[in-house]
Amino acid sequence: MSREIYAKSPGMPYYLCFMRAEIITIGTEILLGQTLDTNSAWLGQRLTERGVEVCRVTSVSDKPEDIVAALDAANSAWVFVTGGLGPTKDDLTKHVLTDYFHDTLTYRPEVYAHIEALFATMGRVPNSLNRPQAELPSKATILHNAVGTAQGMMWEESGRRVVSMPGVPYEMKRIMEDGVLPLMDKMQSDAHVHRYFVVQGVPESELALQIQTWEDALPKHVSLAYLPSAGFVKLRLTAIVPKSSIDAAHFTMQELSKGLRSILGNSVYTEDLSPLEVVVGHLLVELGQTLATAESCTGGAVAARVTSVPGSSAYFRGAVVAYANDVKQHQLGVGQADLLLHGAVSEAVVRQMAQGARKRLRSDWAIATSGVAGPDGGTKEKPIGTVWIAIAGPKTLWSKCFQMGKNRERTVEKTVQTALNALRSVILEGQAG
Amino acid sequence: MSREIYAKSPGMPYYLCFMRAEIITIGTEILLGQTLDTNSAWLGQRLTERGVEVCRVTSVSDKPEDIVAALDAANSAWVFVTGGLGPTKDDLTKHVLTDYFHDTLTYRPEVYAHIEALFATMGRVPNSLNRPQAELPSKATILHNAVGTAQGMMWEESGRRVVSMPGVPYEMKRIMEDGVLPLMDKMQSDAHVHRYFVVQGVPESELALQIQTWEDALPKHVSLAYLPSAGFVKLRLTAIVPKSSIDAAHFTMQELSKGLRSILGNSVYTEDLSPLEVVVGHLLVELGQTLATAESCTGGAVAARVTSVPGSSAYFRGAVVAYANDVKQHQLGVGQADLLLHGAVSEAVVRQMAQGARKRLRSDWAIATSGVAGPDGGTKEKPIGTVWIAIAGPKTLWSKCFQMGKNRERTVEKTVQTALNALRSVILEGQAG
Repeated sequence: MSREIYAKSPGMPYYLCFMRAEIITIGTEILLGQTLDTNSAWLGQRLTERGVEVCRVTSVSDKPEDIVAALDAANSAWVFVTGGLGPTKDDLTKHVLTDYFHDTLTYRPEVYAHIEALFATMGRVPNSLNRPQAELPSKATILHNAVGTAQGMMWEESGRRVVSMPGVPYEMKRIMEDGVLPLMDKMQSDAHVHRYFVVQGVPESELALQIQTWEDALPKHVSLAYLPSAGFVKLRLTAIVPKSSIDAAHFTMQELSKGLRSILGNSVYTEDLSPLEVVVGHLLVELGQTLATAESCTGGAVAARVTSVPGSSAYFRGAVVAYANDVKQHQLGVGQADLLLHGAVSEAVVRQMAQGARKRLRSDWAIATSGVAGPDGGTKEKPIGTVWIAIAGPKTLWSKCFQMGKNRERTVEKTVQTALNALRSVILEGQAG
Repeated sequence: MSREIYAKSPGMPYYLCFMRAEIITIGTEILLGQTLDTNSAWLGQRLTERGVEVCRVTSVSDKPEDIVAALDAANSAWVFVTGGLGPTKDDLTKHVLTDYFHDTLTYRPEVYAHIEALFATMGRVPNSLNRPQAELPSKATILHNAVGTAQGMMWEESGRRVVSMPGVPYEMKRIMEDGVLPLMDKMQSDAHVHRYFVVQGVPESELALQIQTWEDALPKHVSLAYLPSAGFVKLRLTAIVPKSSIDAAHFTMQELSKGLRSILGNSVYTEDLSPLEVVVGHLLVELGQTLATAESCTGGAVAARVTSVPGSSAYFRGAVVAYANDVKQHQLGVGQADLLLHGAVSEAVVRQMAQGARKRLRSDWAIATSGVAGPDGGTKEKPIGTVWIAIAGPKTLWSKCFQMGKNRERTVEKTVQTALNALRSVILEGQAG
């Protein structure tokens, strides 16, 4: 599957890859499997967006010989090295790189002033370990680290740029965003213009069919990438043009976006990569309306997603997680007869759960979920993965049955995503109709 | 920090690394940053446990020349290659490796029978793309993939073993566990005996002090690794002995474990790596008692963690997520006066929330949380990160205030972990007292 996706989304056509990059991550935690290498994924995304092809990612220990071997093997225009810049004596990257480039360390008072300022904000003063962090290689361009004491460094040698940054993700990202990415953009003769569309509730293969005609008609300088995740698909539209014609490109992208919107309509829930729970939150704030949930199979996961958004207390009232049937009766007012007659996983019960939550938690809208998450409890009529979702609103009561598959964890994840999108669709249709 | 951890936990002393390994992951999704490389982390852990040093992880595209370059650079006794074994024509790994080892593909009827059997369980039959998956290199040892159609392959050449496996995590893990790890264990002259202790609620530095004397007295052939995560620390005790004296080693480990238990007591919540929610579940099942939650700042995340355990419906009754104050009043019976006088984030309110949940959801035990998750809402008296947790039980009412830091997401995560562990401790103390 993922292969097929890649076939459709090489980031951009190979002949456009005027720059190649590779990434070297330093630190034994990654080799020991104690740490997941999220830095490379973030770098890979930022570079791909710019048409820079990442051709290799290498993780090595902090032994000098391993670091040097990786540097020798790196033959790309850009080499990004992360990790090993901390203040403790086993952080060797700076020294290894300085030797590697026949460079020498010189003390930079302005950097030390920055380190002191950072410590001051924490009401502390630098210790003896921090002073050496102001000693930096003289041939290297220093890349300011606004949020940490370890500065970034960039050496240029025979057409190759080696950039060294701390392994702490937010420090690495800040150095890239403040210093490196703007430089790369300046160096590029071409501009890369992107548009994103996140689509919910349409399987990737079906999506590809829906937009086939539109996709086939894309101009040569525009490419489309499919980036699928659990329950949704991210579409990235990229135009690569000479910087001189960037305005024209923006216009073209606008027209293409209109075309895509007219095909996909409400199934696109964001064009700025906002998570679904944020989009739903904005919608409720606009309307000045509130939300509650009544959850069985999701066990509170919908409420947890909604409240993961800062400021959600403005529109989220609360939830009743009704795992036991008598809790469905007493806390949500579900009829005992319906529970006995139809069972907890049924349209009758999930609709009463939604109405009960709306009434008892005094919200404008309510989401209800009831399903068989498994691994046990499946029957012939209601196999594992059967999930009922209901949405109750001021003038609406909507419900639908879904089949979420055999994996408990994914069933909950997909149900949360599907339920939030169902609320969004019901609200939007109500506004339209 | 992570450096310091590593200093304490190199897996094992270098001179014991009688085997070195490296990992090559194939697939452009990783380079594009679309997929996180979790396979390498899992392999790194399994190999480190066996005293095998992972000296390099390389991710390359599926271009044959990139795969070959990575293979040429790999100079370790074990080389693990994951990815690129799917049925579609851009999955080239098998063909590249077969050429690389001057091997030829031969059709294996027993493998095709296995593929047919797998499809039969899904009520389907293999298509034309699947048949070639039964064509496998003749010089390679075939590693049975019980859960997938792409078989593992192992070539041995001049003291180097190259193992190729699918990139699908559960297929790769299954092939390792069924075929490769048992073989590695058989090959080892030494046996590696492990004990795990997961410690909750003690910061790593403090933990190190508590067990310092015990740790300093460890026999030479036993090493201790600290593997910290959000809110807990995993301790791995490893004894490396000749296979002949494995019984003695087990005895030694038992004695050492007793010593560690007597120091750490209840702060160790598992010795078999069970997640905290599973440990709490077992405890409730043993007691034949039930649980409910009343959540404000965690917004349902405690309930979601508890219900992530299959079978949790046996002991979990439900939850009231009371984000709005009037929901705390009407659904949990919190006194309006206390809300006005002390505020929602207070001992008085969190205790009433726990008691209310216990009474209204008819459970033996209840967990309640109320805090300032941030980024807004902090005051001088109740800064962001202030969290009250209460536990109500048949004969107990326990409550405590914590400072969880400035990050909303981590505050929720730590509060869930801390609250579940508080329930565990209160139950155990009740049994002891």
